[in-house]
Amino acid sequence: MAAVNQVYIAIIGAGGVGKCFLSQLQALAARKPSPKLSLCYISTSRKALYNVDYSPVSLEGVTESLAASTQAPPPLPQVIDYLASAPAKVVLVDNTSSQDVADAYPLALSRGLSIVTPNKKAFSGSYKLWQDIFTASATSGAKVYHESSVGAGLPVISTLKDLVDTGDKVTKIEGVFSGTMSFLFNSFAPTEGQGGKWSEEVKKAKALGYTEPDPRDDLNGLDVARKLTILARLAGLPVESPTSFPVQSLIPKELETCSTGDEFLDKLPAFDQQMEDTKAAAEKAGKVVRFVGSIDVATQQVKVGLEQFDRSHPIASLKGSDNIISFYTERYGSNPLIIQGAGAGGDVTAMGVTGDLIKVLSQIA
Amino acid sequence: MAAVNQVYIAIIGAGGVGKCFLSQLQALAARKPSPKLSLCYISTSRKALYNVDYSPVSLEGVTESLAASTQAPPPLPQVIDYLASAPAKVVLVDNTSSQDVADAYPLALSRGLSIVTPNKKAFSGSYKLWQDIFTASATSGAKVYHESSVGAGLPVISTLKDLVDTGDKVTKIEGVFSGTMSFLFNSFAPTEGQGGKWSEEVKKAKALGYTEPDPRDDLNGLDVARKLTILARLAGLPVESPTSFPVQSLIPKELETCSTGDEFLDKLPAFDQQMEDTKAAAEKAGKVVRFVGSIDVATQQVKVGLEQFDRSHPIASLKGSDNIISFYTERYGSNPLIIQGAGAGGDVTAMGVTGDLIKVLSQIA
Repeated sequence: MAAVNQVYIAIIGAGGVGKCFLSQLQALAARKPSPKLSLCYISTSRKALYNVDYSPVSLEGVTESLAASTQAPPPLPQVIDYLASAPAKVVLVDNTSSQDVADAYPLALSRGLSIVTPNKKAFSGSYKLWQDIFTASATSGAKVYHESSVGAGLPVISTLKDLVDTGDKVTKIEGVFSGTMSFLFNSFAPTEGQGGKWSEEVKKAKALGYTEPDPRDDLNGLDVARKLTILARLAGLPVESPTSFPVQSLIPKELETCSTGDEFLDKLPAFDQQMEDTKAAAEKAGKVVRFVGSIDVATQQVKVGLEQFDRSHPIASLKGSDNIISFYTERYGSNPLIIQGAGAGGDVTAMGVTGDLIKVLSQIA
Repeated sequence: MAAVNQVYIAIIGAGGVGKCFLSQLQALAARKPSPKLSLCYISTSRKALYNVDYSPVSLEGVTESLAASTQAPPPLPQVIDYLASAPAKVVLVDNTSSQDVADAYPLALSRGLSIVTPNKKAFSGSYKLWQDIFTASATSGAKVYHESSVGAGLPVISTLKDLVDTGDKVTKIEGVFSGTMSFLFNSFAPTEGQGGKWSEEVKKAKALGYTEPDPRDDLNGLDVARKLTILARLAGLPVESPTSFPVQSLIPKELETCSTGDEFLDKLPAFDQQMEDTKAAAEKAGKVVRFVGSIDVATQQVKVGLEQFDRSHPIASLKGSDNIISFYTERYGSNPLIIQGAGAGGDVTAMGVTGDLIKVLSQIA
């Protein structure tokens, strides 16, 4: 049998994605032949579970044990110290969306900790952080994987990396990168039938749990801009930040200052006509309107906003809250390589994290 | 800098895919920081290039050097002996479609040689060969990757493996797995317009280089059946062979005995009415006919043949010679995870091989 070395797993974050990941990790650890995994640290923003002698934290009932813990999480540099001194290799799983944790990646990587995470902040913040992360990884040999930072468990990052690493030239990336925006426009401007009023569709999406608690956090386009930033950088463009290119916000100027999401939703119907006009303009051209992001690699143009598509276009005929990402490359020619499916949700996001963990284990164990 | 160990590359096959792979390998080897790759063996069915002391074969102009070589390839067990005695780890790249080479995988893997290949034969032959291959790999720790055995460079195998490895339950896999069949049916029964006569479309596809030299090698459905066999096995079904489930052949019984592909093409127009009836039946139901493969995991049913699809279905609206593969799983629910794009061609097939090589290098170097 090929020798497999012990690997320690440290987890920060036990929210929606974190809980799904824990359940997938339990299944992975129980598999025969079992990978030699042991949990040496887990924390939320207020609690932590770990043993100074690195004796394993039991995966069974770990959510309950964590809730019952009286330990507070130490400051991040101290956590990294603890992990870097572990008597085996460590994978740090960051299941938060915290900028603070993201900012600590260069330190963690330079200390030899590999990282897997769905946290977009690390890869879509300043370009300097991006460079620091990958320089630290290249120097120490520690791995950093972040499949779920774009399109959740869909193989978006891995596919783009494969294209680039094997020497293909990516010319354009285009798609629907937000499950919320997908749902909203597939309902508001369907390829067949009429669709509802914009404000009604936003309320429906919120009621179904498809939006952030404050829907403006989806409608401002920043989430899509962050994903575009990540893909553009992987394609070789030194994008400075997710606010360094044109991003169309669907929040009417007048409603930017609403103090709550509920106030925003109450006042939104007064602006339905704007969106109705946008829809009508597309219909006049025989098209439908969709909220898309695109990266033109040659001209280095990245943009996020509304565009019109033929009803038969794959972007127009998307279903539910699916994402779709089209990679146009030199090798693939006029027909792009397309990835499509659910791009949000705890289980599929955790799947991307677990898949990354398996890949890292295959390299360091 | 993380230490990188030397890895030897051995290549069998220098045809269409092989030549594209060599060009991608040259680019990979020239990259900075450069992976420590050295070519220690390359052969076609008639010629070989290698040095008994493992001194590297130059990648520059290797196609010409190979053509000029006067060495014949040694028998496979002898090649495996030579490679297994190399003073570093070895990746064997099989760019043939040879059953003989495929049959040698268990021996090669058991001797510690990792394998990357687009060769379908190894994974779609007898179930015993499949078991022998993966047992040998698990025992020795040598890797075996075969992304391009289904859908060329499209991330089909890796996605299915990720789904399974992270604990998702695949319920159904469905798609168009043949570029030839895709082209034929997208032209013969387009979602808009009339389409040509069946025999004319087959002739056109051959003229464009989209078919095998004898188009019957595409029309018999065996190529699709092989791909389905591979995916079904990865999804956990112990499929005995690509002929152990229903495969619809599009070769009229009367033309099975034609001695040449040209004779077949000459006589095919007499059978156009059969296909015309098939198309008309679908149209009557408001649908179009497509040549698909499907795997129902729960009922363990695998089948290949003609089926009807709504015009708005992603399988119906495919373009050119694209493949499309839909994975229905427990996590992804009613909307499948879809991969779409060119599933044939030297460059994209070689890309899958090069991508696999990079993954193996990251694990063994």
